[in-house]
Amino acid sequence: MMDLHQEMEKIGERARSAQRRLQSADSAAKDQALRLMAEFLRRDADNLQRANRKDLRSAEEAGKDAAFIDRLRLDETRIEAMARGLEEIAALPDPVGEITDLRYRPSGIQVGHMRAPLGVIAMIYESRPNVTADAAGLCVKSGNAVILRGGSESLNSNMAIAERLRAALGKAGLPLDLVQYVNTADREAVGVLISMDAHVDVVIPRGGKGLISRIKADATVPVIMHLDGNCHVYVDADADARKALKVVVNAKTQRLGTCNTAESLLIHKDRMEDLLLPIVTALQEKGIEVRACERSLPRLAGAVAATEEDYGTEYLGPIISLKIVDDLDAAIAHINRYGSQHTESILTENYTHARRFLREVDASSLMVNASTRFADGFEYGLGAEIGISTNRLHVRGPVGLEGLTLQKWIVLGDGHIRS
Amino acid sequence: MMDLHQEMEKIGERARSAQRRLQSADSAAKDQALRLMAEFLRRDADNLQRANRKDLRSAEEAGKDAAFIDRLRLDETRIEAMARGLEEIAALPDPVGEITDLRYRPSGIQVGHMRAPLGVIAMIYESRPNVTADAAGLCVKSGNAVILRGGSESLNSNMAIAERLRAALGKAGLPLDLVQYVNTADREAVGVLISMDAHVDVVIPRGGKGLISRIKADATVPVIMHLDGNCHVYVDADADARKALKVVVNAKTQRLGTCNTAESLLIHKDRMEDLLLPIVTALQEKGIEVRACERSLPRLAGAVAATEEDYGTEYLGPIISLKIVDDLDAAIAHINRYGSQHTESILTENYTHARRFLREVDASSLMVNASTRFADGFEYGLGAEIGISTNRLHVRGPVGLEGLTLQKWIVLGDGHIRS
Repeated sequence: MMDLHQEMEKIGERARSAQRRLQSADSAAKDQALRLMAEFLRRDADNLQRANRKDLRSAEEAGKDAAFIDRLRLDETRIEAMARGLEEIAALPDPVGEITDLRYRPSGIQVGHMRAPLGVIAMIYESRPNVTADAAGLCVKSGNAVILRGGSESLNSNMAIAERLRAALGKAGLPLDLVQYVNTADREAVGVLISMDAHVDVVIPRGGKGLISRIKADATVPVIMHLDGNCHVYVDADADARKALKVVVNAKTQRLGTCNTAESLLIHKDRMEDLLLPIVTALQEKGIEVRACERSLPRLAGAVAATEEDYGTEYLGPIISLKIVDDLDAAIAHINRYGSQHTESILTENYTHARRFLREVDASSLMVNASTRFADGFEYGLGAEIGISTNRLHVRGPVGLEGLTLQKWIVLGDGHIRS
Repeated sequence: MMDLHQEMEKIGERARSAQRRLQSADSAAKDQALRLMAEFLRRDADNLQRANRKDLRSAEEAGKDAAFIDRLRLDETRIEAMARGLEEIAALPDPVGEITDLRYRPSGIQVGHMRAPLGVIAMIYESRPNVTADAAGLCVKSGNAVILRGGSESLNSNMAIAERLRAALGKAGLPLDLVQYVNTADREAVGVLISMDAHVDVVIPRGGKGLISRIKADATVPVIMHLDGNCHVYVDADADARKALKVVVNAKTQRLGTCNTAESLLIHKDRMEDLLLPIVTALQEKGIEVRACERSLPRLAGAVAATEEDYGTEYLGPIISLKIVDDLDAAIAHINRYGSQHTESILTENYTHARRFLREVDASSLMVNASTRFADGFEYGLGAEIGISTNRLHVRGPVGLEGLTLQKWIVLGDGHIRS
């Protein structure tokens, strides 16, 4: 029996080889493969649901909660959504080979950038089986090979999906090993995958904080990851009252469990009189518990005192922390200290404050008079996203096709030599 | 006494705080600081040379070779070059705050990118004291704080330079701790620095392979690094003979010890008759030893047989490996297998071959009819470079100001909420 390391290295070598062969394929071949993937998923919807039912049964037997089981479920609507997602990726422009900034230099050479794939991507994810198709579609479109490793709870669903994706690659004349699924029960597989520097170029984890922290700690391969989303909305002294009310309520309550949901509210001290109570009341009416600072607490019915810990917490639920700040500097300092560099929004009509907030706050997305809930690949026009990155290097914020590529330099000469 | 960890954390915290304060400084203040740095280095040239003499004496006493001592030496010309380098960086456009691709989305929000600093950069380097000034200039101009750690052999020189740089920051009204030099004799300092994820955002090592491999292995902070430069020149079937001869000789012999020097030569089998001998003879006349494959060896006087190992070796000296290949596919496969993803050049007049080489070869710089020696920040128009990256993520090839920044998203709305 092959040991796990050998097995994973074989997978890595096959991925590298498939990815190299993909470089001579044109955009049409990749798009055709993605459309065939969609077709094969639709055509085999019954079999996909049959595989999914095995996973659902195991989850029920293991006593998983309703939310977990819902995330796991593949019904016809979700299969159709996966298929349509692949078709939408096929319709996006091909990022690979794009040449930019090609300019003549004084030496006579022309120098510019060409966009190229990252190489082999390891995608490690939990529960939602649709990630299998989304990730494969984005990776192949951007010229990469992908090694998929989903959670054991969705093994049957993921493998059934991956099988159709591979069949589509074959029919389109592309290497099957552009998409591989790691199905060994051995839990060490992830550990090996994220330390195979020779075979894997980047790891993208998608799932709960536990998974992502573990991968960050153990990976030797570079990781594109998203940790916390402790997003703030700051209501400035010069905020428009109507916009502030609307945006705060939307940022907190439009969906509670997403990473771009607001978790902390800062209000300028000059707006304690007119805005504090209406905003807090509106949030409370939507079932949100408000954890308030010392200055605001006495003015609020039904709020509780915030602790230091609250300001650093991503609740992912019906709670928001609240703090009164003296000025813009205090707001910026608070966000740079407690924020998780995800998405931060200011409500203001003040031109200078807006400019300073955009420049001085350190986060992936900075917003003026807009809900943090807009931080999303589709809303930003990426077409699709493989995740949201709070990395500093390489890509920050929603990661679409471009985030799965790099820029290499090209130099065109006519026998030029350096003197 | 503070232990090393505490000491390094203090340095990290001071860097972070200084970098945050720099975000409200305008471009003029940064440029003024860089010009003052240049002025202070020039004015204190005598004292810098005095400090440098201490390092030179220690190196001589330690029996270091002439090349080592030459790299270490700070004479008036080199001090002037450092000063002018800082002035040139001051004259470059400020990358920070550049807004691109700001477009309206169907939802009504405007979405775009804003360029921002990486944060705190740890620069770890060996022997050449000028790196102290170059790195500090590039980091401050791009809005970052830098923690410098040079080799013990240049401690006195580096500290003397860093002191003038800090004095210039002070005079320009910027935080001194934008530039800090780690002068503890404790060799563990580097190990602590490259694993302080909370305080350091990126590590840039610059030096020999030993240093860089060690940092890659031990760092938990992301690293922008350059490993080997095993660069190829491929003489295609459709190469112009005159250009091929000129470019190969330049790529190999213009300077022997640089990372963009050609280390391996591939020649298409159809050019064995007319080009093999002239090229090899020209190289041999320049004192280059040619290590040839089985097919070429019998045709060459004074060449030796290449081993498998030769094809993977960066000689950094008067040796080149040589291999005859059957076609473009074989050339591309060879380079993708043995290359180090630094710089690869094709000599050809064939349009299709040029296009395929640019697209299918996996390296930081791809060239057509140009010497690999052009792979350099100045030649590419970056103005200055802090190093060359063979990373896949974030930045690839010469790293200038832009490589020291990231792009964050900005969203401008008018009270927009997500529905």
